[in-house]
Amino acid sequence: MRDVAIVGAGMTRFGELWDQGLRDMFVEAASGALSDAGADRLDSLYVGCMSGGQFVGQEHLGPLMADHLGMTGVAAVHVESACASGGVALRQAFLEVGSGMSDLVLAAGVEKMNDGADVTNVLATAADQELEVYYGVTFPGLYAMIARAHMQHHGTTEEDLAWVAVKNHHHGAMNDKAQFRREVTPEQVMASSLVSEPLRLLHCSPVTDGAAAVLLCPLEMAKEFTDRPVKIVASGLASGSMALADRDDPAFLDAVQKSGQRAFEMADIGPPDVDVAEVHDCFTIAEICCIEALGFVEEGKGGPAARDGLTAIGGRIPVNTSGGLKSKGHPVGATGIAQTIEIFRQLQGEAGQRQVENARVGLAQNMGGSGASSVVHIFEGV
Amino acid sequence: MRDVAIVGAGMTRFGELWDQGLRDMFVEAASGALSDAGADRLDSLYVGCMSGGQFVGQEHLGPLMADHLGMTGVAAVHVESACASGGVALRQAFLEVGSGMSDLVLAAGVEKMNDGADVTNVLATAADQELEVYYGVTFPGLYAMIARAHMQHHGTTEEDLAWVAVKNHHHGAMNDKAQFRREVTPEQVMASSLVSEPLRLLHCSPVTDGAAAVLLCPLEMAKEFTDRPVKIVASGLASGSMALADRDDPAFLDAVQKSGQRAFEMADIGPPDVDVAEVHDCFTIAEICCIEALGFVEEGKGGPAARDGLTAIGGRIPVNTSGGLKSKGHPVGATGIAQTIEIFRQLQGEAGQRQVENARVGLAQNMGGSGASSVVHIFEGV
Repeated sequence: MRDVAIVGAGMTRFGELWDQGLRDMFVEAASGALSDAGADRLDSLYVGCMSGGQFVGQEHLGPLMADHLGMTGVAAVHVESACASGGVALRQAFLEVGSGMSDLVLAAGVEKMNDGADVTNVLATAADQELEVYYGVTFPGLYAMIARAHMQHHGTTEEDLAWVAVKNHHHGAMNDKAQFRREVTPEQVMASSLVSEPLRLLHCSPVTDGAAAVLLCPLEMAKEFTDRPVKIVASGLASGSMALADRDDPAFLDAVQKSGQRAFEMADIGPPDVDVAEVHDCFTIAEICCIEALGFVEEGKGGPAARDGLTAIGGRIPVNTSGGLKSKGHPVGATGIAQTIEIFRQLQGEAGQRQVENARVGLAQNMGGSGASSVVHIFEGV
Repeated sequence: MRDVAIVGAGMTRFGELWDQGLRDMFVEAASGALSDAGADRLDSLYVGCMSGGQFVGQEHLGPLMADHLGMTGVAAVHVESACASGGVALRQAFLEVGSGMSDLVLAAGVEKMNDGADVTNVLATAADQELEVYYGVTFPGLYAMIARAHMQHHGTTEEDLAWVAVKNHHHGAMNDKAQFRREVTPEQVMASSLVSEPLRLLHCSPVTDGAAAVLLCPLEMAKEFTDRPVKIVASGLASGSMALADRDDPAFLDAVQKSGQRAFEMADIGPPDVDVAEVHDCFTIAEICCIEALGFVEEGKGGPAARDGLTAIGGRIPVNTSGGLKSKGHPVGATGIAQTIEIFRQLQGEAGQRQVENARVGLAQNMGGSGASSVVHIFEGV
């Protein structure tokens, strides 16, 4: 497989973008990535999107987006893995460049969630319809059960959960693309209204519109486009049981562990070698489970990580320096690419106020549903 | 890129399968492909499906299908390109094996259309919502406009169209997986009720449930699984304008031509080298446009091809020996894989009554919407 690099990135602001439709957001992000790299052509593009069909009545996103980007003719594919759709789009682009089939491939993600759709029910189609959704479960409900299990097995507290939100809002307050660019206190989190006990409003990522895109090419071509390419050194993808009830331990995310192990093996490094990471904090408890499954902390020890400063900028392993899904926002199909962009900028040394010193190796982990799919990429500055 | 082969295939019957849900059909087809190859493991799987979300309220099909197949843990991705979703799933599997990332990869397609969904409106989400669907167009309407343009530019007649249905039903009558396993006469086609002038009921592919799957591996491993592997020698994917009104000539399918040219170039052969082909006959006019765009006949000369016997078994270039979408049925996400299976069996010499003599090179062309995406694969017996 050829070595592959990221050479450009673009994204919209994340938020309630009432004046932009699905295609407008895609074009803004994709054009941004192309102009960032000074590229005026493409061989192929991937669009990660959970459900254009259900959110805005539009499928067939590959050719639609190629057309509206002014690139009619290029190979164009839509991929879906619920909230991991963006990360999977990156993986497919990585495989296509790596295989030698194509040179210039765009990996993008987009979601238009604020447009009148019944968001909670659309998102629920990422869970098991026959074994879970039929009985009335929603995603806040599923993650509340995960949180309750984690508290019971490992003594994790409501305060531990609250500190994940506090830390990610602190990071997001420095990100001008973030939906909620403000700090919150532990007291505010713990006083916010209950959504699904023990999860409160400020434990949940918001409903967001947005798009993000990165441009990939063979590493040996990368210097044509940027002085500071970032190499994709590994990609790991894994599935797990769809239904929470089928898992041995609902507080442990098997697919996240497997995807991480596959990526670490391919990169031939381990968790201590990672300088900065973006992980999938769709709810505060999710970040705690993910840093355990990825091996950044021991199993059961993720609870106090944010409270202890371990995962803040300046800590041992800075996590979600972008603000994460919690503060930056979570347009589900775009999230995996937005995570990738944060790591790209960190490894370029271009993360501004959020810069992690001497960041050389980065990791992005993006998952779908209640963790039934997870994809991990590892990156290195060149 | 490594050489890649197909070593096993499985599919459900196509039709109104009221006793099987989406996951049941997938498992039947996927298990069939694995047992056909004598394989008991997988590295990765792809699921082509247009819209589990809109048809049956289920997204996140990658891990769901891996789970229900008893393969929890494997990498699993859902891809969508409207009615070309199956062909695109094959392409992604081909790239993944070709890149060296994985050895045993399943490419599958599935669609559950008969389950209470508003099928015409769900399918319409494959057209341009803002420029076409908002104004009331449906797919029979779009293809009726293509047919009318072809008649006007090239003198194609209603009888020409009818003969595509006659020929494909003749082939499908010999296929025990086909939804409509019976012959029709030109008179019956031309007397069937109008759907969208000039297209009548018997010009249209039906609403179908079904699933299909093929197992891929590196060519050098293929003999472990079958004595008669089939090599995938090329894959071409292209996009075109989404909206019919944006095309120079609505009677010519640019994306089909581009996808064919890319595949022929990669295979280093031309249209006359192909012994048997499956093309996307969602409506009779579509087959006519596709055989022109692929170069099997000259532009404008596709009309009389079926009537003249050119595209029947025994003709110069047998097309849709399976019965095509018209007679075999069209579960949109599964179609591209079902086409692949027909070519696989033809090149293995296992097509029974439908066998094309001395078939050595085969082609499958699968398209989305009104032709805004098209994917072509070329295969050779080994």
